[in-house]
Amino acid sequence: MPSSSPLHILPIDSSARAGLSGRDRHGSHTRRLSRRFIDTWMEQRMMDVVTYRDVGQKPPQPVSGDWIAAAFRPPERRNAAQQTVLAESDQLAGELLAADLVVIGAPMYNFGVPAQLKAWIDNVVRVGVTFGFDRARPGEPYWPMLPTGKRLVILTARGDYGYDEGGRLASSNLVEAGLKVPLAYLGLTCSPILGQRELESSGVMAQVGGGADEPFMSEIGTLLPMALCGRNSL
Amino acid sequence: MPSSSPLHILPIDSSARAGLSGRDRHGSHTRRLSRRFIDTWMEQRMMDVVTYRDVGQKPPQPVSGDWIAAAFRPPERRNAAQQTVLAESDQLAGELLAADLVVIGAPMYNFGVPAQLKAWIDNVVRVGVTFGFDRARPGEPYWPMLPTGKRLVILTARGDYGYDEGGRLASSNLVEAGLKVPLAYLGLTCSPILGQRELESSGVMAQVGGGADEPFMSEIGTLLPMALCGRNSL
Repeated sequence: MPSSSPLHILPIDSSARAGLSGRDRHGSHTRRLSRRFIDTWMEQRMMDVVTYRDVGQKPPQPVSGDWIAAAFRPPERRNAAQQTVLAESDQLAGELLAADLVVIGAPMYNFGVPAQLKAWIDNVVRVGVTFGFDRARPGEPYWPMLPTGKRLVILTARGDYGYDEGGRLASSNLVEAGLKVPLAYLGLTCSPILGQRELESSGVMAQVGGGADEPFMSEIGTLLPMALCGRNSL
Repeated sequence: MPSSSPLHILPIDSSARAGLSGRDRHGSHTRRLSRRFIDTWMEQRMMDVVTYRDVGQKPPQPVSGDWIAAAFRPPERRNAAQQTVLAESDQLAGELLAADLVVIGAPMYNFGVPAQLKAWIDNVVRVGVTFGFDRARPGEPYWPMLPTGKRLVILTARGDYGYDEGGRLASSNLVEAGLKVPLAYLGLTCSPILGQRELESSGVMAQVGGGADEPFMSEIGTLLPMALCGRNSL
């Protein structure tokens, strides 16, 4: 990642909660984390360009039958209605294509990503835009279309401990895989971001016990951040 | 499961596509599977009661900040606006509570369940309704609230092979876990349904190769059903 030219940063918040934990009543932990991450980043690289996307406050429409039909139609053959049905997806996929660094705030909702974040995924996985498909191709008929070199950071929070690898609830944690697997399909893989150590110490999960539910979450004083990739080198 | 008294069946379709594969152009494989399952079931048990839910054609609203605030407020303290924001969730959770058999048609969208099905999950996981939470409780502070004895069948379809346990893509398959894990939290676990063998032979996946995308799916002649629980005894 070149440090001399401006980078495009795409922070994506997906919490249903507005506000930031620690500042606002019932604020979001992941919003606090992503804000902190971006603030710290920008202090060091004020030339970078931030395009903010809030799928928590403005959930994308789930893909529909019309969406699917339009997406799999060659662009030059889409009618006006089909272009309209893909407009939001075009916007979201375009933001992803333009980003050098994607920072996703992903709270655990019922063991996985919030529905609104899955709706974002379902909208950015677009044939001919973010992945290619050709049945006549030798080997795998699909290939990633995101330019290489993009980086991904996932900031997550949850209301219980033991979800990390090797933990008692690790097999129930579908958050990281729910983002890593589809994004890797597009060519966006996790890689450590060197020089960003601000969140490192909070990699230690608060040992609080309890369930992954909201009143509990709202009372956790300690942030529960985890940068998925290179957690210790973040 | 008593066979003498009427059972309540809750089929849930989540495909974005209307219509049934093999009958309608670009029809849904999972809708075809669930229709076939329910038709066969009802031929044998016409006394049973079916309540149909289509989250594919009518996606539930993702949970919002207002939803969360209302859900965690004791019911008797909710105002009218809070009751309204929970109305859809009340309906969906009520259907789940009333069902003896839940049959979920779950296509794989970008390796997981469609966003609209995750929205259903996020709406039915309700404190004090489908799970209990009490921090003062010894041991785990949460417990399932769905009555025991309910049964779950998951009918899934996807555009590639190798997603089964031990397969080359098994670690990328987030569909079954995406349903099993949160529903088990509520007390709904998978169990074989004896006496229903109609889908057994289609447990063999079509060996077709290719990607998990839609034009490919639409051309698969063979259904790709898999009953998650007791696949061989279905």
